[in-house]
Amino acid sequence: MTMEVGILGATGMVGQQFVALLANHPWFKVAWLGASERSAGKAYRDAAAWRLPAPLSDDVAKLGVDAATPGRAPKLVFSGLDSSVAGEIEGAFAQAGHIVVSNSRNYRMEADVPLLIPEVNADHLALLKAQAARNWKGRIVTNPNCVVVVYAMALAPLRQFGLKSSIITTLQAISGAGYPGVPSWDILGNVIPFIGGGEEQKIETETNKILGTVKNGAVQDHEVKISAAVTRVGVHNGHTGSIAVSLDQKPDVDAIVAAWNGFRGRPQALGLPSAPAQPIVYLTEQNRPQPSLDVNRDGGMTITIGRLRACPVLDFKFVALGHNTIRGAAGAAILNAELMHREGLL
Amino acid sequence: MTMEVGILGATGMVGQQFVALLANHPWFKVAWLGASERSAGKAYRDAAAWRLPAPLSDDVAKLGVDAATPGRAPKLVFSGLDSSVAGEIEGAFAQAGHIVVSNSRNYRMEADVPLLIPEVNADHLALLKAQAARNWKGRIVTNPNCVVVVYAMALAPLRQFGLKSSIITTLQAISGAGYPGVPSWDILGNVIPFIGGGEEQKIETETNKILGTVKNGAVQDHEVKISAAVTRVGVHNGHTGSIAVSLDQKPDVDAIVAAWNGFRGRPQALGLPSAPAQPIVYLTEQNRPQPSLDVNRDGGMTITIGRLRACPVLDFKFVALGHNTIRGAAGAAILNAELMHREGLL
Amino acid sequence: MTMEVGILGATGMVGQQFVALLANHPWFKVAWLGASERSAGKAYRDAAAWRLPAPLSDDVAKLGVDAATPGRAPKLVFSGLDSSVAGEIEGAFAQAGHIVVSNSRNYRMEADVPLLIPEVNADHLALLKAQAARNWKGRIVTNPNCVVVVYAMALAPLRQFGLKSSIITTLQAISGAGYPGVPSWDILGNVIPFIGGGEEQKIETETNKILGTVKNGAVQDHEVKISAAVTRVGVHNGHTGSIAVSLDQKPDVDAIVAAWNGFRGRPQALGLPSAPAQPIVYLTEQNRPQPSLDVNRDGGMTITIGRLRACPVLDFKFVALGHNTIRGAAGAAILNAELMHREGLL
Amino acid sequence: MTMEVGILGATGMVGQQFVALLANHPWFKVAWLGASERSAGKAYRDAAAWRLPAPLSDDVAKLGVDAATPGRAPKLVFSGLDSSVAGEIEGAFAQAGHIVVSNSRNYRMEADVPLLIPEVNADHLALLKAQAARNWKGRIVTNPNCVVVVYAMALAPLRQFGLKSSIITTLQAISGAGYPGVPSWDILGNVIPFIGGGEEQKIETETNKILGTVKNGAVQDHEVKISAAVTRVGVHNGHTGSIAVSLDQKPDVDAIVAAWNGFRGRPQALGLPSAPAQPIVYLTEQNRPQPSLDVNRDGGMTITIGRLRACPVLDFKFVALGHNTIRGAAGAAILNAELMHREGLL
Repeated sequence: MTMEVGILGATGMVGQQFVALLANHPWFKVAWLGASERSAGKAYRDAAAWRLPAPLSDDVAKLGVDAATPGRAPKLVFSGLDSSVAGEIEGAFAQAGHIVVSNSRNYRMEADVPLLIPEVNADHLALLKAQAARNWKGRIVTNPNCVVVVYAMALAPLRQFGLKSSIITTLQAISGAGYPGVPSWDILGNVIPFIGGGEEQKIETETNKILGTVKNGAVQDHEVKISAAVTRVGVHNGHTGSIAVSLDQKPDVDAIVAAWNGFRGRPQALGLPSAPAQPIVYLTEQNRPQPSLDVNRDGGMTITIGRLRACPVLDFKFVALGHNTIRGAAGAAILNAELMHREGLL
Repeated sequence: MTMEVGILGATGMVGQQFVALLANHPWFKVAWLGASERSAGKAYRDAAAWRLPAPLSDDVAKLGVDAATPGRAPKLVFSGLDSSVAGEIEGAFAQAGHIVVSNSRNYRMEADVPLLIPEVNADHLALLKAQAARNWKGRIVTNPNCVVVVYAMALAPLRQFGLKSSIITTLQAISGAGYPGVPSWDILGNVIPFIGGGEEQKIETETNKILGTVKNGAVQDHEVKISAAVTRVGVHNGHTGSIAVSLDQKPDVDAIVAAWNGFRGRPQALGLPSAPAQPIVYLTEQNRPQPSLDVNRDGGMTITIGRLRACPVLDFKFVALGHNTIRGAAGAAILNAELMHREGLL
Repeated sequence: MTMEVGILGATGMVGQQFVALLANHPWFKVAWLGASERSAGKAYRDAAAWRLPAPLSDDVAKLGVDAATPGRAPKLVFSGLDSSVAGEIEGAFAQAGHIVVSNSRNYRMEADVPLLIPEVNADHLALLKAQAARNWKGRIVTNPNCVVVVYAMALAPLRQFGLKSSIITTLQAISGAGYPGVPSWDILGNVIPFIGGGEEQKIETETNKILGTVKNGAVQDHEVKISAAVTRVGVHNGHTGSIAVSLDQKPDVDAIVAAWNGFRGRPQALGLPSAPAQPIVYLTEQNRPQPSLDVNRDGGMTITIGRLRACPVLDFKFVALGHNTIRGAAGAAILNAELMHREGLL
Repeated sequence: MTMEVGILGATGMVGQQFVALLANHPWFKVAWLGASERSAGKAYRDAAAWRLPAPLSDDVAKLGVDAATPGRAPKLVFSGLDSSVAGEIEGAFAQAGHIVVSNSRNYRMEADVPLLIPEVNADHLALLKAQAARNWKGRIVTNPNCVVVVYAMALAPLRQFGLKSSIITTLQAISGAGYPGVPSWDILGNVIPFIGGGEEQKIETETNKILGTVKNGAVQDHEVKISAAVTRVGVHNGHTGSIAVSLDQKPDVDAIVAAWNGFRGRPQALGLPSAPAQPIVYLTEQNRPQPSLDVNRDGGMTITIGRLRACPVLDFKFVALGHNTIRGAAGAAILNAELMHREGLL
């Protein structure tokens, strides 16, 4: 039995990634596409040029694009909406009874909205009950910023060692800026040491919520001090983080690598369709991970880490990489929905 | 009166940059070129393809390339030799009475060899006296690793605020790897989170020597803990550093920016030909510095800095950029020689 | 004595190039900037981010941006307007008495408008008299499409050999698409075999007009059949053409190279400030010209050609390169204005 | 039943592609790896860094690398050897009784060696009988140059329209130069209008042999005049050709598109494992094909064509694209071997 799903913001970079990832999904079938007024009324194929190497299926190509308003959409709706409009639209869908599984930032930090990485904090779904206090018949669940997914997954297994603080410098792919996104004139052969939209602040705040624990129906943040510096580089897909951490306990390198390689969560226990068998893979080659070689591992759902070594200022430093529009966006949301489905929340 | 100079390693990436920068130098004239056996005996134009946008002057193009042995070379010799051979060859030239102004790493950390950034530690030339203890009729002076020039210049004006520790993640240009250097297959649209040759170690050790002070004829290192993580990106020229620092005193942002913009050294006091009027320029735009836009400022001799802001883990973070084969290599060595010339050491 | 000039479309890619090239011009001084409503009223520095490596002069940075309407503008106005608005605006300026030296395509193929490359068809300025028949107190002069400047200059010296037909495939730089122009997602590590706006048709028609001769006050097209196929590649500046030609006479390679290297025109005879000493330079290396190495020769005003060899289908094939926003746009227009100034037409 | 196969030149770019494509092959299993002395004796994993995104299977990773000499190799050997050594080594293997299915250029133009594209000239396998005249117990079969596969497939369906001549300008990927291949300094943001090793000559000669017909046991070349101009661009995989053709008959655009889309050959008739269902796909979007979007279609074995339109000089022009290390190299050889297997020639 497949469940029909909708996609909000279906023509954008993340929206197209939703379409691509759901093409052969065992549970979910794309039956509704919502986008801006400009696209509404057109066949999906004509609403926006398809920009992914994976071919667009004829079924979805022929689907008509609807306006981004509730009504004809199925109960489960994925959202890849731009944050400039996501707040209002997602709220309207939740109010109208939809389960909105969103990649947008608007509701992430709301106290009653789970900010979910299923391997890390599946129990945060407990927050959903509190949404009953809103005049919503439906619910909203969010996944983190595309850097934060990579970063929080890398940090989660380090909590056991007394994670105190961390500094991250990112080298982020252009797909993170959507489409048309970064002009080629600006990024070809260049580095831009800035990303708008509060990117650094998102990294510094979302991570604490994700690593936190649910007590009395609310998330109590993990007390880790985080400093983020972000840059954009000329890479199609894959956010790389150069990360330093301080740990109260002083584990050795082998213990940390074992913690990463052995890390498993609810998606693995439940055998969710989009769950990678091993969510974090430590690469032993001295020059890895690299976007070109590692970003698509396990369909883009695995985080790869390498170069763990002592840090003369904090305690350890390493490099982590994840696919920003799959593990960091559309794939993250789909994994959230898979978890909710198996937990009986859809 | 111009002084004839030689270039060791004249066909390599740094060697070509020496040739380009000396093309219209008011004091120095390239009169001798030394390279490997493979090139010796050929005209420079035929010894290696010219790979810089600045046209090769006919004068130098016609010069014959000599073997990398003392004898016919002028007294002052710049060295862009690969470190695999620089130790022996530069030593032989020093022994034979040459002043070797070297970009290679081999002698940088020797106690009696100045590791020089003229704006920062011109007084380290005092070490040269100690070289008399070697059986050298000549002398060796070195400039730092290409990242370290940028980094140490950015840190130097912060010593007054009690600089204690710093973490740097670099995004380094391909020209830093020489030629043929990084294969295009590896770096096009990619990030490589590793650079060989002990790059991180060089950054962590050279900086302390440069920032140190000369006491009783020896350098006493500045006690700053440094942690470096290096990456290679698809940029032609320009090493970018994402830097965090902790400072004992807690200056405000304006005081730090003023310290950078006001920073001057001996090259500015002496009006050396290659000295930029303002060695460090703080850019106020939120997305700067960028290699594409800023790397060639003042002929590539200026360090640009931007994005100074509080760091939740250390005290401040910012971004610094410099031209790695000019300010970080050939231009650095030329400025060293200009300083020595004006200080009567040639 | 310097002449004050204005720039229409001052914030765009070509507009910024006008500002950069006129920064130290011996005759012309930028005194007026016109742009869209969105920019009007702001200081130039604030109207649009400066995107060129050459620093923006303080004088121009402080200039206020005016609306793109005649009135306050000086008599001589350069236009880098987008073709969607250039027709109406340039016409209004001409009507109001301005000399509009335009890079836009709108008036290029009008029978009474010179489509000028000063080295090739300076005599086409004779068309200007015919503009008296319009209700214009001023005049419009145009330069060709950015590919056509390169192409027509390469073909002009071949007319003497009985040029009959030519096929060109271009590899065009991203700056040709303006700003923001080509999204990085589309072009990074890619080739796009299409350019909109009738690019191929422009190449196939403009070239004939430029190579034509003025008879009885009208241009008689040169009868050369041209076929153009255009592609976009990830290059900042420099349009490369892979060109084949058939020639009635069968000159040898040396004769053709001599024709190119010896080619001179009015700008050289008059010593115009922006005129390169040798407008076409044939490079003998087997792998040239290349954008990275050759595009900025003589300030970007020289066309470089290489790889001349027999073509088994037509007669000869070769590669030509020119800087698309300098020789192919802003520099072309400035050279046009310099010619007009010296010919007493301003 | 799987057949054991060997790979000559197993560590190179094409060798790695052989390993990747054979990883899950239904008929062939990699059991032997031959490479240079430098690699011999090492495990494959250690002999050369794996440089493809597809993970290296543990089975092959553990295989020992042998010297490139016959003896321990299985009967069927794929060769991705560099042409500097392929002539001698492949000859030695053929003499020793091996079936050498080679991607190297050395034997391609020999009269008794099939230069094979299975969809185009499967009947050329008849040449193999003539190899009995050599002192070879084995045989050599070759596939064309990586551009020629794309080009000859695009031209093959046009033979019915009286194909007379063609001009091609290529934009070739860096993987075509092997590894380390093109230095990043040379190609990043650049175009190199030259490829060594007689690339243009190969295109101009191999195509005629491939399109030719076997008469009396020998290939009679197709009489088509070809002119090739090659360039290198910063693309990982995918050679693009801008192609013009003259055709005796004057078909309309629809007839040509139908000829391409309907083109099938022996691989499709036999259902060979690596055969794409539709070897040539015409794309109707005006800006296709593009390497980023189209090169991996059907596992990289499909040629995509687009932009067919009239050519003012010849008759038609269009753009063709193929994956140079799959359809143009390793995949081509594997398809050759599959054909030979089904034809009973292994």
